[in-house]
Amino acid sequence: MDGCPAGHRVSLESIQREMDRRRPGQSGVSTPRSEQDRVEVLSGVFKGVTTGTPICMVVWNRDADPSPYDRIKDTPRPGHADYAASVRYGGHQDHRGGGRFSGRNTAGFVMAGALAKQVLTRLGVEVLGYTRQIGEVVSPEPTPQEIRDQGEANPVRCPHPASADRMVAAIEEVRKAGDSLGGKVACVALNVPPGLGQPVFDTLEGDLAKALFSVPAVKAVESGAGAGHASMKGSESNDQYLIEDGRVRTATNNSGGIHGGISNGMPITCLVTFKPTPSIPRPQRTVNLATHEEATIEVTGRHDPCIVPRAVPVVESVVAMVLLDHALSSGFIGQVLEEAR
Amino acid sequence: MDGCPAGHRVSLESIQREMDRRRPGQSGVSTPRSEQDRVEVLSGVFKGVTTGTPICMVVWNRDADPSPYDRIKDTPRPGHADYAASVRYGGHQDHRGGGRFSGRNTAGFVMAGALAKQVLTRLGVEVLGYTRQIGEVVSPEPTPQEIRDQGEANPVRCPHPASADRMVAAIEEVRKAGDSLGGKVACVALNVPPGLGQPVFDTLEGDLAKALFSVPAVKAVESGAGAGHASMKGSESNDQYLIEDGRVRTATNNSGGIHGGISNGMPITCLVTFKPTPSIPRPQRTVNLATHEEATIEVTGRHDPCIVPRAVPVVESVVAMVLLDHALSSGFIGQVLEEAR
Amino acid sequence: MDGCPAGHRVSLESIQREMDRRRPGQSGVSTPRSEQDRVEVLSGVFKGVTTGTPICMVVWNRDADPSPYDRIKDTPRPGHADYAASVRYGGHQDHRGGGRFSGRNTAGFVMAGALAKQVLTRLGVEVLGYTRQIGEVVSPEPTPQEIRDQGEANPVRCPHPASADRMVAAIEEVRKAGDSLGGKVACVALNVPPGLGQPVFDTLEGDLAKALFSVPAVKAVESGAGAGHASMKGSESNDQYLIEDGRVRTATNNSGGIHGGISNGMPITCLVTFKPTPSIPRPQRTVNLATHEEATIEVTGRHDPCIVPRAVPVVESVVAMVLLDHALSSGFIGQVLEEAR
Amino acid sequence: MDGCPAGHRVSLESIQREMDRRRPGQSGVSTPRSEQDRVEVLSGVFKGVTTGTPICMVVWNRDADPSPYDRIKDTPRPGHADYAASVRYGGHQDHRGGGRFSGRNTAGFVMAGALAKQVLTRLGVEVLGYTRQIGEVVSPEPTPQEIRDQGEANPVRCPHPASADRMVAAIEEVRKAGDSLGGKVACVALNVPPGLGQPVFDTLEGDLAKALFSVPAVKAVESGAGAGHASMKGSESNDQYLIEDGRVRTATNNSGGIHGGISNGMPITCLVTFKPTPSIPRPQRTVNLATHEEATIEVTGRHDPCIVPRAVPVVESVVAMVLLDHALSSGFIGQVLEEAR
Repeated sequence: MDGCPAGHRVSLESIQREMDRRRPGQSGVSTPRSEQDRVEVLSGVFKGVTTGTPICMVVWNRDADPSPYDRIKDTPRPGHADYAASVRYGGHQDHRGGGRFSGRNTAGFVMAGALAKQVLTRLGVEVLGYTRQIGEVVSPEPTPQEIRDQGEANPVRCPHPASADRMVAAIEEVRKAGDSLGGKVACVALNVPPGLGQPVFDTLEGDLAKALFSVPAVKAVESGAGAGHASMKGSESNDQYLIEDGRVRTATNNSGGIHGGISNGMPITCLVTFKPTPSIPRPQRTVNLATHEEATIEVTGRHDPCIVPRAVPVVESVVAMVLLDHALSSGFIGQVLEEAR
Repeated sequence: MDGCPAGHRVSLESIQREMDRRRPGQSGVSTPRSEQDRVEVLSGVFKGVTTGTPICMVVWNRDADPSPYDRIKDTPRPGHADYAASVRYGGHQDHRGGGRFSGRNTAGFVMAGALAKQVLTRLGVEVLGYTRQIGEVVSPEPTPQEIRDQGEANPVRCPHPASADRMVAAIEEVRKAGDSLGGKVACVALNVPPGLGQPVFDTLEGDLAKALFSVPAVKAVESGAGAGHASMKGSESNDQYLIEDGRVRTATNNSGGIHGGISNGMPITCLVTFKPTPSIPRPQRTVNLATHEEATIEVTGRHDPCIVPRAVPVVESVVAMVLLDHALSSGFIGQVLEEAR
Repeated sequence: MDGCPAGHRVSLESIQREMDRRRPGQSGVSTPRSEQDRVEVLSGVFKGVTTGTPICMVVWNRDADPSPYDRIKDTPRPGHADYAASVRYGGHQDHRGGGRFSGRNTAGFVMAGALAKQVLTRLGVEVLGYTRQIGEVVSPEPTPQEIRDQGEANPVRCPHPASADRMVAAIEEVRKAGDSLGGKVACVALNVPPGLGQPVFDTLEGDLAKALFSVPAVKAVESGAGAGHASMKGSESNDQYLIEDGRVRTATNNSGGIHGGISNGMPITCLVTFKPTPSIPRPQRTVNLATHEEATIEVTGRHDPCIVPRAVPVVESVVAMVLLDHALSSGFIGQVLEEAR
Repeated sequence: MDGCPAGHRVSLESIQREMDRRRPGQSGVSTPRSEQDRVEVLSGVFKGVTTGTPICMVVWNRDADPSPYDRIKDTPRPGHADYAASVRYGGHQDHRGGGRFSGRNTAGFVMAGALAKQVLTRLGVEVLGYTRQIGEVVSPEPTPQEIRDQGEANPVRCPHPASADRMVAAIEEVRKAGDSLGGKVACVALNVPPGLGQPVFDTLEGDLAKALFSVPAVKAVESGAGAGHASMKGSESNDQYLIEDGRVRTATNNSGGIHGGISNGMPITCLVTFKPTPSIPRPQRTVNLATHEEATIEVTGRHDPCIVPRAVPVVESVVAMVLLDHALSSGFIGQVLEEAR
């Protein structure tokens, strides 16, 4: 993680907490807390404080068992990057567990994002993610306080309890059927100062979208009311201005806090679609790249039937990193940080 | 436009044709063809052939009338970037017509994109855009041949004639009501070689999304089945592999031709949501930034009640530029270009 | 020029003045002032003030006569980029006058650099260039005040009058002999705040060097005492610290104001070597790329026998742009600019 | 190290060999070979072959003793980055051993550069560095074969034995005097294909210079005849073309194989000046940043009196990385690599 300002006192505990939110196997109550994914800081932090130089954090892969992957070497798994990577890298990619394409890569996003969130907190910015949809179950939009209060209260990270129950049931159903489900993670960033981002080449929406599409399985990024704008009229979609507590605000927030690629002071909101986990234990059609013949594959191993709940801290992390990056490159924030030191 | 390979014979006519597709006032049959937006090439082309150095193309603003904009200087238009830009640039932005935030900026995208499409054609790649949705009217998904045949046959650029008729009616209705409509542009790129893009930091989807969010009014970018993945099961969403004419293909294309950020040889497909034109001649609430009081604004001037049809060549252009960029940075394509010279 | 902060009132006169310093044909007293190279601003400045968006400035080529270049199409000029460009661009480069490789490109550096200097002035930073060496004539190192007073007092831009006289004589001599001379331009930037630049990937010296090597004919970049360090001892080279007027300073400035890639508050100094003008009217050996046979070439046209004096504003401009870029990306300066508005 | 092509079989032995060349304490014959700085590969190599994804190599600091650095916390060492870093990072930098500014950082350059050299070898490119100057002792320019034969034959890495002897004596002398010496490393890259690099924004010289200035203690970068061009005439400096073995070559190579920022097929040559080791055990003036008073410092610890010999593999590594980067981004080389697989 490069670019983190010097002088920030790092809370390793809070980084670890975010890593634990991303960790597999959290939802079963009886699962004993394992010591997996302990974050170590190798550089960039001295006496507990950021030095301003690159921060290297690492978690070691301890119980990876690559053996199930050997037989998929030549038969790409449907929905995975195996085939595209094989072409891109001439067959030399590390096929075990998806390698560079693995969801495991998001551990890095969360480590860095957890630190970004800490710095943003000092700027007064709060980043809140939650599960909005799993399969056919769509939750109503919660208030920020509901996210804070209920976001971690159930295993699907949906702050609307009734929806959460139905999501849990939907996941259980596909799990039994040897199938999987997709869904949507929503994210809201509060107290983002206006004026971050710029038109055309570094829009805030463009940077958020590019970063979010780095997360495996993301297939859509929407800003504010997003795709819903398509069926709106201008008189509905336009966020009209008013003055509230002496500050310029908008009456609605269909824009998701961004106009012309620049933050306008309203909450930044986005919606990220994740496709269903592609690894499912059903027979699927594939091809044998060695023999160039059609084949069948059954993907085994430990796979979540729905990765959406674990993706919540990942989305928060990515959003936090992009916002921090823009905040640091803008003139407004340097002063705030300086004073906070 | 930097990075265009040397030795490509430029068709100025085809660049101009794309500019004409983007031009305002095309849809009225009686509108005489004006000589607006004639593209001039200032550098990078010598004896009709690209030199490999930056290509500067320009169209001059001829009949811009900035006077309607003077009174909006202090009262930001709802749905526009006026307020965010004012904060970002300390009140020094050029407020006339949106300045750097104007839809006028897309003229540059189309000039460069038209050239990118020409080069891609030599690589066998075809980029086809069309209107998928306007307001509540959603078109069925057309075949590539239907896009080629019907895409320009009606003023809304929807290759499904019955949908096109309903879209035209919907636009007429809001125009009369002093309102506007949003919609979706779809884009498909055929014959894109597998292996373009890379995981994590330069995914093809991320680069497409970042570039598409540079287009004013874009609020969502979906790849392949996009947001539809949220309510799918893995067994539905996974694109299973087969061999067709000796090549590896997928039976479905929910992934939109991209797995793990890398093209897989199937058509690249994306869906881009545009919000309704924010400039509507109805009274709307705003604030006076000079007096810091609430105010009312009616936005006048020449504004399309729906910009979606004109956005079709813009989306095609952006997609073409991103694909060309990845094709050039990959090792696969250099050879093709070299031979084609 | 992208990244110039909003709210700066632009002096077009001072930009034009810098362009006039770079203009050919200045040194002959009898040469009437032509109206060549008038700078036009096409974008990014509104009501005389920068908007914060990209600034496009242009000068039009008016009396270019490409005819002398036709016969060099296939016979690359020794010392020029003709051959390398021909390979790089497959023979499609614009060979007239060097095209993208022409010294003419430095007009763009000077336009942008002149604006950068204006902004730096508001930060208290002053950038002063001068001719240190032409051929065998090496000037003693002047004080900043001598540069200000004498830098423009003679046609070679050397603030040491006796050296200047000898430089003029040396140039006259090679001109008569149909030959040319190289030299060195020195540049000093005063009042640069400490703390600009960073180690390893964005060192201030590295960015200065990369930018300076963009100037045609540059063959060496030295920082501070530069290559002279090779024959120094540590006890001579180390700049020892002291306190002067309450500020940390160094007793010497062999480091050229940069330690570890970061400015230390002392003047930034560098030395830039320009090779002799390669265009000389003597017969030289070349090859005919069409016939692949050896050949002879005599390069005619209007060429300075020594470009070093005209390179002084170019070097100043490049240094100014790099410093401004680092100043803007650092937290220190934003505040200064904000207050200065 | 990102961007290394897939399919390259890595020789860890040859990487280790380069690390051993950079290692401290090599020159004393009696020094037993310690097992320091063993390179481990953490990612990007699978079954001994590069995967195309980022390669993480690490050496662990084992016997670092930071205690001598505690007392320099507030008293910056002359010639070091301590003070500049303290300003840049608000006093939060890791002051032990120079932290991010330490010569230790070049271990990373050598690991990555060793791998770059391996890939370049498959392209036929050979990178040879050697010591050209130490203090007042300047070696004559050797042939490539002399560098291969004699470059490692003496502790100063100077392929001219008589000069090497004098260099050794000069270093011994300053060591006894508690002082240090600077010098120059030369580097030549053979068989670099013509056409790498581009004008203005990515010149080969600019990229080499920027990368070389990333190496601590570098104060000048010269290309080809470098600063020597200042006192040349055009008729001397111009490299005239001829045909040799059917290929276009130049009779001299003052340009160092680069014209207009682009390789011309001749050997790439550069000269890099290193300042004397700033850590010397003599009393020097400094200031106490805590008390803001003048002070005295004596820098102790294990420091080479001249780092130039150990810098030879560092310069080679940096040059190799820049050349590989340009080779990969050019169309010419992809094909060669593909065939070589």
